[in-house]
Amino acid sequence: MKLVKVIGSVTSTIKDPSLQGFKLLLVQTVGADLKDKQDFFVAVDTIGLGEGEIGLIVTGSTAKYTEITRHKNIDAAIVAKVERIDLENYNLES
Amino acid sequence: MKLVKVIGSVTSTIKDPSLQGFKLLLVQTVGADLKDKQDFFVAVDTIGLGEGEIGLIVTGSTAKYTEITRHKNIDAAIVAKVERIDLENYNLES
Amino acid sequence: MKLVKVIGSVTSTIKDPSLQGFKLLLVQTVGADLKDKQDFFVAVDTIGLGEGEIGLIVTGSTAKYTEITRHKNIDAAIVAKVERIDLENYNLES
Amino acid sequence: MKLVKVIGSVTSTIKDPSLQGFKLLLVQTVGADLKDKQDFFVAVDTIGLGEGEIGLIVTGSTAKYTEITRHKNIDAAIVAKVERIDLENYNLES
Amino acid sequence: MKLVKVIGSVTSTIKDPSLQGFKLLLVQTVGADLKDKQDFFVAVDTIGLGEGEIGLIVTGSTAKYTEITRHKNIDAAIVAKVERIDLENYNLES
Repeated sequence: MKLVKVIGSVTSTIKDPSLQGFKLLLVQTVGADLKDKQDFFVAVDTIGLGEGEIGLIVTGSTAKYTEITRHKNIDAAIVAKVERIDLENYNLES
Repeated sequence: MKLVKVIGSVTSTIKDPSLQGFKLLLVQTVGADLKDKQDFFVAVDTIGLGEGEIGLIVTGSTAKYTEITRHKNIDAAIVAKVERIDLENYNLES
Repeated sequence: MKLVKVIGSVTSTIKDPSLQGFKLLLVQTVGADLKDKQDFFVAVDTIGLGEGEIGLIVTGSTAKYTEITRHKNIDAAIVAKVERIDLENYNLES
Repeated sequence: MKLVKVIGSVTSTIKDPSLQGFKLLLVQTVGADLKDKQDFFVAVDTIGLGEGEIGLIVTGSTAKYTEITRHKNIDAAIVAKVERIDLENYNLES
Repeated sequence: MKLVKVIGSVTSTIKDPSLQGFKLLLVQTVGADLKDKQDFFVAVDTIGLGEGEIGLIVTGSTAKYTEITRHKNIDAAIVAKVERIDLENYNLES
């Protein structure tokens, strides 16, 4: 999984039928310090994540393993909200 | 999915039979500000995207999940036109 | 496989059901000199690796091939602890 | 697919049996201006591409979808020769 | 496939059962000039490659397509020894 921050949402009306009904969020990968790393994904939100929140995405064929995305034409899905990261020397409340 | 801008089209007559009949677009990944990131893909257009427009691509085995690309020998497909991106502090009409 | 160092752990209570019960570690890829390379993954720990230790991760669909992660919605798993790396001119005890 | 330029060929006699009989070309990914990007692949040539020519490769499991590479142990295949690229402001004959 | 140089070996006793019995080599991707590119993989050696030698690896699900790695929990395998690379203007004996 990749650690990401939600930075916005994407609206699309002209799209493949299997993308209908999904909420598409624009996310950016972050490192241990939660700073931006400039790697962007548009991911299907399966858990309800808000703007600025930290979560985990799965990519590739794995994105089709959640209940709502099964057999759908997607390759990136948000599968977890991250509430806390514990590093060796300090903790981060995300 | 990856956010991309269409920058051109590709013509190929000598190719694998399973690529016949597809419109191949040259796209470049972009970030939240829609500026170029220099990561290029040649993707099958499944929705009708024009030059300079913003869309979403799926890559890898997922590119075989649209109606027209099923079981085809492709690993990148445009699956959505992006009409609008909402960021925390401002909106972008693409 | 990728060589990684464990740098922390991640807590998530709101998540896809298939992620329940897994220990999620934040790891960073390292090179032959075991120095950090800034590529982060959150991986399911299948063998019991401690903070600061060196291990191997598998990514993508391969992460579903361990006993405990089979058919689960994950794309990164720690599958080995690295005790020793032998390079041409010197050895590293990790 | 990725846009690539053929820069050489690779000879291997000691190899996995499923690689027998394939012509292996060394290719480098290029951008819209056909300049080198330093990302190298060794790809099975399925269409007959010459040195310095521009083509398309598929990577990952998709490389097993051509007639001659089916079920083979390869993850990169050249599937098209690119004869022409049309960009917004000018055309390139490759 | 990716062109790699063998730079060392990795020892692991605590690991997923499906990794038992494999020789794990630390490799680094190289370009046409065989210089290091700093992208490291730990790959299962299926052909017997020595330190400093040049070979080809397959990654991802393709790594499970050799005789000895079938259905195993690995995502990188060395599948060929490279004896010779022919570039447009000169040849390299690896």
